[in-house]
Amino acid sequence: METFVKEIADDLGKIREQKPLVHHITNFVVMNETANMTLCLGALPVMAHAREEVEEMVGFAGALVLNIGTLTPELIESMIIAGKKANELGVPAILDPVGAGATILRTDAVKSLLKDVNMAVIRGNSAEIGILAGVGGEIKGVEAIGKNDRIVEAAQSLAKSQGCVVSVTGAEDIITDGERTAFVRNGDAMMATITGTGCMSTTITAGFAAVQNDYFKAATGALVAFGIAGEKAAASTRGKPGSFHALLYDAVYALDSDAIIKEANLQIELPV
Amino acid sequence: METFVKEIADDLGKIREQKPLVHHITNFVVMNETANMTLCLGALPVMAHAREEVEEMVGFAGALVLNIGTLTPELIESMIIAGKKANELGVPAILDPVGAGATILRTDAVKSLLKDVNMAVIRGNSAEIGILAGVGGEIKGVEAIGKNDRIVEAAQSLAKSQGCVVSVTGAEDIITDGERTAFVRNGDAMMATITGTGCMSTTITAGFAAVQNDYFKAATGALVAFGIAGEKAAASTRGKPGSFHALLYDAVYALDSDAIIKEANLQIELPV
Amino acid sequence: METFVKEIADDLGKIREQKPLVHHITNFVVMNETANMTLCLGALPVMAHAREEVEEMVGFAGALVLNIGTLTPELIESMIIAGKKANELGVPAILDPVGAGATILRTDAVKSLLKDVNMAVIRGNSAEIGILAGVGGEIKGVEAIGKNDRIVEAAQSLAKSQGCVVSVTGAEDIITDGERTAFVRNGDAMMATITGTGCMSTTITAGFAAVQNDYFKAATGALVAFGIAGEKAAASTRGKPGSFHALLYDAVYALDSDAIIKEANLQIELPV
Repeated sequence: METFVKEIADDLGKIREQKPLVHHITNFVVMNETANMTLCLGALPVMAHAREEVEEMVGFAGALVLNIGTLTPELIESMIIAGKKANELGVPAILDPVGAGATILRTDAVKSLLKDVNMAVIRGNSAEIGILAGVGGEIKGVEAIGKNDRIVEAAQSLAKSQGCVVSVTGAEDIITDGERTAFVRNGDAMMATITGTGCMSTTITAGFAAVQNDYFKAATGALVAFGIAGEKAAASTRGKPGSFHALLYDAVYALDSDAIIKEANLQIELPV
Repeated sequence: METFVKEIADDLGKIREQKPLVHHITNFVVMNETANMTLCLGALPVMAHAREEVEEMVGFAGALVLNIGTLTPELIESMIIAGKKANELGVPAILDPVGAGATILRTDAVKSLLKDVNMAVIRGNSAEIGILAGVGGEIKGVEAIGKNDRIVEAAQSLAKSQGCVVSVTGAEDIITDGERTAFVRNGDAMMATITGTGCMSTTITAGFAAVQNDYFKAATGALVAFGIAGEKAAASTRGKPGSFHALLYDAVYALDSDAIIKEANLQIELPV
Repeated sequence: METFVKEIADDLGKIREQKPLVHHITNFVVMNETANMTLCLGALPVMAHAREEVEEMVGFAGALVLNIGTLTPELIESMIIAGKKANELGVPAILDPVGAGATILRTDAVKSLLKDVNMAVIRGNSAEIGILAGVGGEIKGVEAIGKNDRIVEAAQSLAKSQGCVVSVTGAEDIITDGERTAFVRNGDAMMATITGTGCMSTTITAGFAAVQNDYFKAATGALVAFGIAGEKAAASTRGKPGSFHALLYDAVYALDSDAIIKEANLQIELPV
């Protein structure tokens, strides 16, 4: 475990050294927030969604974020074009299936994306992942409602069927490639008081995936790092979502090896 | 009056208990801000504007916000589809006619929306409401300019002709259903130093309308609650719009029954 | 120089007195941020991009911002329509060529815009300006990479060929109309830690251009003013991008004549 955590700290250092470009095709709610989070992490953001340029833009990218939060058929088309090119170039594609299961458009969009693009990581909440895995889940708009007791198995099953890493954020985060499963206990309930922390965690996952091609490690590292930042930001802003929001950027920016190594709170289950 | 204020406090409690989904079809300037304000109020936001999904999404909603701030013909089409479905389902539709009167596109869009959709509340500034009521108003971009002496009559007349509640925000807020008229004196001039406080007040109106089907009470309660939050946020951030912006979320999140009951500053005129 | 700085301070006063409307056709990442910055400066923002209304809206404007950060062919079409109307009406058009050179779509869009619209000011980073001037530049997404030793000559050459002012932001800002060249040393490295400070500087340039028709003076004044605000915001938020972001609005709002006159740090080279 010590080695694993050390690697997370090293990956954070690599992001800051290499400054990978994270190409986002994302929703209009969190464009500014995820661009700023990319910068705080030490990477460079670009938001570009026109069908006419996504293929070219992804050619410069270290990772590609596909986030369907405010999807339209045109955006899905751009995502598929960019995703295919990312696959061709070996650029990891990270899918955030915001609101999958809430409407037919969203569910169908995710199906199209998964059919045409090999994802490195799918990062969602327990309802979205449960629905994609076929075990169901309750979603209210884009929010997971209630507890899903079968979420670990659902995530593992989806990881196996898609041949990718599945990352489920919640009170306890679950990351799995179908064989290895990590449980991350960093984070704070304040993170649920602002919109877009899910999307931010996807962005940070993309940042780690740009420097670490074991995507299970990348996705786990991202949630450890973001969770620690959330804890630090929450320490002085309990009950104050607006203040917490500003300090969350400060905390991600201030993250260092020491914090990762001292504060990481995770457990990993390996196949027997 | 005491009973009326008590009901506002109770409605705030209901929002936090029921966590209604507030479906927004809104402008790209304030998507993040109004989503966060929805969360701070205790409700759940969803931003979804694709024609292909709005009808389905509004089926899960407690209220629907239609905000034309960055309108296109496609968005207006989605608003009409969603609004008709909301009417069919009894979901209250709240219209924010941003910049009505500034351009033909905006004025025509509002006419189309009012022809096809029965609104629960129209929430605008004095210029927008004056223009919709046919008494005129001066608008610079999306900002009301100058004073409109006939705004109370204009709001009452629009409320009667549309059969809905009309809510006019400004130094003093005016809410009317054509019979009852409320004057809300909560709020602070700092609220005009940041963009989107009008849109936020529409969002909060939608939150209240999701739990209170006397929409005159809902619209009045929303402006009392938001105004009190504005006063609290301004107390320590006079002359500092960026700091005020962050604290405005904190203040809405921290609102409770006590604050409503102690700080409400309103007057209600009933028909004789 | 004293007179020049005094004029900057006067122009800031004029913005606050006249409250010009700054019409933005801009990207979805910074819509909220640039609207808020416009308000903090003392001007009024309107974000309106529908082809059907841009011509009418620009008729009320004191300046027009054309920012291609998240361009699509439809947005470029709207920009050309609005830009032509601005030229016809004598409204200064300010171009922000975000990511020019990064993709063919962006480079071609800028070419179309420069062919059809006479810009008052082109405001970009050193890579964007270098590429537009034909001397090249290295861009990663929308970020200038490395140093461009020939940037002063490039800016001057672009200014001459386009017959407009060229404004290059960076550690040292360069503003030129091809004859006069200003070097602005205000600003702080913290400004590069958040997304959209380039776009904000374009917005502020538009605010100054609305009240000062010597656009060389307007563009220089904007960067002096914004740079001083950046220094003030950074003073207490070193290493804290989220906190800096909020305080940057406060600092622009708090700017006054005294601050401009005392803190301006610039050099001007006139033709011999």
